[in-house]
Amino acid sequence: MKRAIELSIENINKGGGPFGCVIIKDNKIIAEGSNKVTPTKDPTAHGEIVAIRAACKKLDNFNLKGCELYSTCEPCPMCLSAIYWARIDKIYYANTREDAKKIDFDDSLIYSEFSKNIDERKIPMIQIMRNEALKAFELWDKKTDKVKY
Amino acid sequence: MKRAIELSIENINKGGGPFGCVIIKDNKIIAEGSNKVTPTKDPTAHGEIVAIRAACKKLDNFNLKGCELYSTCEPCPMCLSAIYWARIDKIYYANTREDAKKIDFDDSLIYSEFSKNIDERKIPMIQIMRNEALKAFELWDKKTDKVKY
Repeated sequence: MKRAIELSIENINKGGGPFGCVIIKDNKIIAEGSNKVTPTKDPTAHGEIVAIRAACKKLDNFNLKGCELYSTCEPCPMCLSAIYWARIDKIYYANTREDAKKIDFDDSLIYSEFSKNIDERKIPMIQIMRNEALKAFELWDKKTDKVKY
Repeated sequence: MKRAIELSIENINKGGGPFGCVIIKDNKIIAEGSNKVTPTKDPTAHGEIVAIRAACKKLDNFNLKGCELYSTCEPCPMCLSAIYWARIDKIYYANTREDAKKIDFDDSLIYSEFSKNIDERKIPMIQIMRNEALKAFELWDKKTDKVKY
């Protein structure tokens, strides 16, 4: 966590947000990340996502089982979901989402959207063409040599 | 959506999952994406994330206000959060999360984790070193030339 905090402080002077993240495996840091949303103009480039991508590249695997993640702040819903998809074992965090809200990084809207029905959410979600789209799922289901994850 | 469905079908033969996505602005497709998790070994490379990153690159902006997203499947929690962070106006989707579950893409665990307290979740979340980490937030708060988003 000490290293993640260093990254979060260094990152402020590099034009990114005050968030840092490291991923460890077998007690060694295998990847680092910091918030790069504004410098790279990528809204998905939160510290955790940057670190997960780097760790997967390093291990040449989309599955990070056996890894632990240290983030200087409680992960937002996007990053928390990415941590689940990556099968990371354990999360250490320092600042809370309330701390982040105080400096105007507010993910409470997104957290609250998950408990709402689709038709009650802030961004409208409209279902169309399900019958046509199901074709891809049927083809996938029948495929014998697929890589599952 | 027709184009997104084409992408989802083409992608099966390219080694990715059966998901496609397009982003439009002013009635024109500005970015496309399909699921690249296994071919690129990146667990965050869902169709929507790939399309969002491409759209931001195209517009040279981390904010996609004025854009609409078409996904062949209801977005998972990671992608839905990314759509909120990207400030996309509207979501069209075709297959549901239940359809995806039937072919073994199951994000219901992740959806259910959000309604749980931190200490009840499947991946343990442990808070440490908040006092030390708050320093970055204080520095950010005092910074006068920051780029907010």
